[in-house]
Amino acid sequence: MIRKGFQVAARLGYHRVLPGTPRILPRLNTAAAFGSSTESLVSRFCQEKTNLKDYALPNASWCPDMLSLYQEFVEKTKADGWIKLPSFKSNRDHIQGLKLPSGLAVSSDKSDWRIFTRCIQVEGQGYEYVIFFHPSKKNSVCLFQPGPYLEGPPGFAHGGSLAAMMDETFSKTAYLAGEGLLTLSLNIRFKNLIPVGSLAVLNVDVEKIEDQKLYMSCITLSRDQQTVYAKSSGVFLQLQLEEESSQ
Amino acid sequence: MIRKGFQVAARLGYHRVLPGTPRILPRLNTAAAFGSSTESLVSRFCQEKTNLKDYALPNASWCPDMLSLYQEFVEKTKADGWIKLPSFKSNRDHIQGLKLPSGLAVSSDKSDWRIFTRCIQVEGQGYEYVIFFHPSKKNSVCLFQPGPYLEGPPGFAHGGSLAAMMDETFSKTAYLAGEGLLTLSLNIRFKNLIPVGSLAVLNVDVEKIEDQKLYMSCITLSRDQQTVYAKSSGVFLQLQLEEESSQ
Repeated sequence: MIRKGFQVAARLGYHRVLPGTPRILPRLNTAAAFGSSTESLVSRFCQEKTNLKDYALPNASWCPDMLSLYQEFVEKTKADGWIKLPSFKSNRDHIQGLKLPSGLAVSSDKSDWRIFTRCIQVEGQGYEYVIFFHPSKKNSVCLFQPGPYLEGPPGFAHGGSLAAMMDETFSKTAYLAGEGLLTLSLNIRFKNLIPVGSLAVLNVDVEKIEDQKLYMSCITLSRDQQTVYAKSSGVFLQLQLEEESSQ
Repeated sequence: MIRKGFQVAARLGYHRVLPGTPRILPRLNTAAAFGSSTESLVSRFCQEKTNLKDYALPNASWCPDMLSLYQEFVEKTKADGWIKLPSFKSNRDHIQGLKLPSGLAVSSDKSDWRIFTRCIQVEGQGYEYVIFFHPSKKNSVCLFQPGPYLEGPPGFAHGGSLAAMMDETFSKTAYLAGEGLLTLSLNIRFKNLIPVGSLAVLNVDVEKIEDQKLYMSCITLSRDQQTVYAKSSGVFLQLQLEEESSQ
């Protein structure tokens, strides 16, 4: 028999239920749930001192649109409360000192793990992107330039590469805005193709947080905002990361 | 003013409309539309003689589940009408001798273009997959093994990597089943995380073809069919590829 319906339980392993049991969400200790402020999440995530390479910095492959909008947002980090998120090779680096909720088995071997959106390390060939986050507005902007390894139709970005960029931008926003950790759903309407090597701007808003879920929307536009590339929505499940020391 | 609503017109360039014009789909010459049989599409797509590397063949990184299910499907290609689709480095190789509809500008430079799902060429590190298609049933099965460069949560595949795999499987199915060429929408509900290095099986069905659109569904399961990883649906727009010689 196929297990149907949503099973965070099986997914997380620590509330395993029988097939067919209509269990929607894992039980939580509500007293302890989601007490972290956005400020503490941001300071935990955006460590200033680190020896890890930040991939979300300009390089020679960035097109003029990407560079100029990056500079605009860097200015906004000085005055308007925006934060530039660092982007390391692996999510394992982003959650240093923390671990996933109990029961989510983490492989401990020494493989060269990479977060999917940093899977290609040759500048300009794969994903070039940088995410800015505004803690009080709870929104994000991702500057995304797809390279020739992200092709779908000849000359244009694969729809799946944009889907992954959306999921990743949603993911970082969800975590910082409210400890959203796992994607529950992703709905995308594609409007126009993104030419390889050009800039697409993902504008993400947190619409609401309800019943352990964050509801977000995203509109992806050209630099001049005249072309809509896609509209999407995403729902993420809130789960708390744990301190390593509590092991 | 931002262009809203669906604009295949702007997307394809040859039916450009003014912003705000409620033009939903490009006009087609219905006499010429979609006359290709599935058989001719398959024979065009699955050229037997080619010097191109087929990436959809077993290698040392494939896990036992992937290898054994691959062998099962290879047997089905001999008796049950299934076809194993070749998978080249670029969609440009898949549509050799053909070109995109007029107006879809294709860059002609000599970059190292790669279809997104073949962006990582190191065996086992990125995407390992093979798609089997059944022409008369109009369904597909994709065997997908995510490598450590496709990571999201530590030890598990990034949701975006599965989204891209779905989009790609939908895409090939849509083309072969009815000249579906561009993704219009993609809706995904994630149920369980896929461990890196394990097999996920995407089962795609064409639900209907209506108003120049192909409606498809996909359920992604573990090898033993006991775990649902995700359910999704996709809608693709039908567009005819053109003969190069007609240029």
